[in-house]
Amino acid sequence: MIYVVEMDVNIPESWSEDKLADYIKREQETSQKWQKSGKWVYLWRVAGKYSNISVIDAESPDELHQIISSLPLFPYMNIKVTSVCKHPNAIRETMI
Amino acid sequence: MIYVVEMDVNIPESWSEDKLADYIKREQETSQKWQKSGKWVYLWRVAGKYSNISVIDAESPDELHQIISSLPLFPYMNIKVTSVCKHPNAIRETMI
Amino acid sequence: MIYVVEMDVNIPESWSEDKLADYIKREQETSQKWQKSGKWVYLWRVAGKYSNISVIDAESPDELHQIISSLPLFPYMNIKVTSVCKHPNAIRETMI
Amino acid sequence: MIYVVEMDVNIPESWSEDKLADYIKREQETSQKWQKSGKWVYLWRVAGKYSNISVIDAESPDELHQIISSLPLFPYMNIKVTSVCKHPNAIRETMI
Amino acid sequence: MIYVVEMDVNIPESWSEDKLADYIKREQETSQKWQKSGKWVYLWRVAGKYSNISVIDAESPDELHQIISSLPLFPYMNIKVTSVCKHPNAIRETMI
Amino acid sequence: MIYVVEMDVNIPESWSEDKLADYIKREQETSQKWQKSGKWVYLWRVAGKYSNISVIDAESPDELHQIISSLPLFPYMNIKVTSVCKHPNAIRETMI
Amino acid sequence: MIYVVEMDVNIPESWSEDKLADYIKREQETSQKWQKSGKWVYLWRVAGKYSNISVIDAESPDELHQIISSLPLFPYMNIKVTSVCKHPNAIRETMI
Amino acid sequence: MIYVVEMDVNIPESWSEDKLADYIKREQETSQKWQKSGKWVYLWRVAGKYSNISVIDAESPDELHQIISSLPLFPYMNIKVTSVCKHPNAIRETMI
Amino acid sequence: MIYVVEMDVNIPESWSEDKLADYIKREQETSQKWQKSGKWVYLWRVAGKYSNISVIDAESPDELHQIISSLPLFPYMNIKVTSVCKHPNAIRETMI
Amino acid sequence: MIYVVEMDVNIPESWSEDKLADYIKREQETSQKWQKSGKWVYLWRVAGKYSNISVIDAESPDELHQIISSLPLFPYMNIKVTSVCKHPNAIRETMI
Repeated sequence: MIYVVEMDVNIPESWSEDKLADYIKREQETSQKWQKSGKWVYLWRVAGKYSNISVIDAESPDELHQIISSLPLFPYMNIKVTSVCKHPNAIRETMI
Repeated sequence: MIYVVEMDVNIPESWSEDKLADYIKREQETSQKWQKSGKWVYLWRVAGKYSNISVIDAESPDELHQIISSLPLFPYMNIKVTSVCKHPNAIRETMI
Repeated sequence: MIYVVEMDVNIPESWSEDKLADYIKREQETSQKWQKSGKWVYLWRVAGKYSNISVIDAESPDELHQIISSLPLFPYMNIKVTSVCKHPNAIRETMI
Repeated sequence: MIYVVEMDVNIPESWSEDKLADYIKREQETSQKWQKSGKWVYLWRVAGKYSNISVIDAESPDELHQIISSLPLFPYMNIKVTSVCKHPNAIRETMI
Repeated sequence: MIYVVEMDVNIPESWSEDKLADYIKREQETSQKWQKSGKWVYLWRVAGKYSNISVIDAESPDELHQIISSLPLFPYMNIKVTSVCKHPNAIRETMI
Repeated sequence: MIYVVEMDVNIPESWSEDKLADYIKREQETSQKWQKSGKWVYLWRVAGKYSNISVIDAESPDELHQIISSLPLFPYMNIKVTSVCKHPNAIRETMI
Repeated sequence: MIYVVEMDVNIPESWSEDKLADYIKREQETSQKWQKSGKWVYLWRVAGKYSNISVIDAESPDELHQIISSLPLFPYMNIKVTSVCKHPNAIRETMI
Repeated sequence: MIYVVEMDVNIPESWSEDKLADYIKREQETSQKWQKSGKWVYLWRVAGKYSNISVIDAESPDELHQIISSLPLFPYMNIKVTSVCKHPNAIRETMI
Repeated sequence: MIYVVEMDVNIPESWSEDKLADYIKREQETSQKWQKSGKWVYLWRVAGKYSNISVIDAESPDELHQIISSLPLFPYMNIKVTSVCKHPNAIRETMI
Repeated sequence: MIYVVEMDVNIPESWSEDKLADYIKREQETSQKWQKSGKWVYLWRVAGKYSNISVIDAESPDELHQIISSLPLFPYMNIKVTSVCKHPNAIRETMI
């Protein structure tokens, strides 16, 4: 099932540049692992903000939580989750 | 370029059922015309709400406005527009 | 899967008492039909407000939308949907 | 009486991993003690967020406060408490 | 148990002066009936606004709902309910 | 004159337990001094939150400010002040 | 004592131009009566909005409410009341 | 002096199409009169919304109010006014 | 021209008492310098909060910014600026 | 295409004056580089706040993000991006 997820990152001000670089590297690895699995369908940057909008195709709410909470920056993000379903006016047969 | 658009519909309480049915029919025709053109890429219902989340691929902000404002229910919707761009962690070559 | 749903009802001020009574009667019938099916697990009144908090066990986001949008007062409610999953500290084996 | 409680956790950025692990362990012990007592009826994770929604059956507002404030992370949570009661459309004889 | 309740009144603009006067009269009768019972302990006007803050001593959340929802203007009010309990620094033995 | 005051406490995360204990002790002493004077009429805990709702009977806005700002935790609280007056439907002759 | 009051006017859309003109005329008369009394010290238009910011010098919260609620447009305004007092850095001996 | 003004239009649902067309025509005439005067420097549509962002060069707050309040749709708009001034990093000698 | 300015002070929790005392002393000196100049007309404490409401008579938005940004606590304040002008119902010939 | 961008700066409280001065210097260099390129058309200070409103003429959402995220203070700003397009009432042939 499809979730539209908006994540706003708030880097703690006390972090050193090394610590931040390490987090960013691990964040990339984790998000790319999920993208390669096909479950993280789209990962877009919000233009002009330290935020992303993602489209995630998870088998269950539990899997959605597993994906998002595996991100190293998970504790430092404000996250908005929207569960979407078939729209009666949609001409596409499938969700994605 | 890609826009993620959230539209919340507020049907005026004074509308008759006939008027509403007419609007809903024309709304469907207009949104499907844009979907067939390939510009309105995804149209999803927000589960449990009279809202949709859409992904629109417009050539310009002007075209985005042309698409959204052509909807008969446009004056009766709260609309949130987010312009998105390439994310450095995205593995997909293209936006869609 | 389990959804916690909060619904705030806004009765249109122009409705006659008869129209309102009719809606309330049909609202009751619809919500009770879903309760009897076992999908609408809990329906609680928020103390002091014209709102309810409900726990709905739906097979999919589509079914959740089908349940909520079947309510006659659906177009006149502000609705907040929260998708929940297993908590690591929960001792209960099942969600409900 | 039944309360629906939403707790959003904000871990202080200055905490060491050891300190955090200690808090998480004590948080689990405390919440499970209350679950075993039967007073903390449901503990659900909000999918995709560091939040939970709980259903607590307390004898009084004082007991509700005793339960929530006994959590080690209590000072680091945003908490929303909703007191619920019998809904006229509910078919269930009891609240839980 | 004690609830602090804030009620903001929104008179429908379509009401005639007679209809409004009738509602205000019945609102007064209902609120005074509950005050005389001892359950509606304080009824204060918020200075400069069409709002009140009330302190209600109800036996249960159900009774609180019964009291507030019996007001004729109940469907036209925004209502905020706060459940309060004993404060460790309070010197008063009782809540009221 | 009567003020209804809601205070939400935000303990700085950097404080040691000793520092916090000292503040809490002095907070108690200060609030109890004002309660004994009769000016701080009610001090209630918001059930489930690190907040209180208080009813303060001050001679002037200046005295209200003197009372609240004398609290050691004053710089670490979000505070909402509501000035109330006689309600036309109140049956009580006095405010308290 | 001094209150800073912000009033946002929301004219009901159903009003005829005659009805609106009548309200505006009576609104002017009432506000000028209070200005002449010396209690309504300043009445400023918020530049670019159908709002005003006023400084009112009332003897009590009850008088403040009497002044504001005497305005014919009172039921159609969103009102924010702020009670102010002496600032320790103020060099002016009096409030006004 | 320069003001950035955001105006969101809320057309009353009760208006006939003729009434709306008349307002839109007069709105255009008024806004173009001010644009021709050089005071209304930029008028942009917010892409996808019934809103505009304008840059207005007025001689005083009074003139700004005169300009905005002369719009026929003024009573039906939510308006946000921001007064801007020279930024220390700006390389442009003038504001416009 | 007249601005109504609301300033909420957020003292950084990490400051020592000496550092805070130094800032408060310089804050007083700066605000009193502007008050003596006649430009900072009123400085009021919001009763019960670490906030002030000020009325500032500046020659331009640039001067307003110069005044406010000269305050030592400027980087630690949330500030709301409202530009006001002549109200058609005001009986006072001048703004102040 | 034109974007109206509002940036609110939140300087971390832990920064030394040297660190802050360094950031401010590099912020100026970066913003002036973009202004000289012609892409950052206007940079205005919000009067009385540590915020700016900017008008940026970027070739794409990606370029907009490149410009804004190149600012050294980017991680410490709240940013609001509004994409604007041609308004039907605008008399100007071009956007800028």
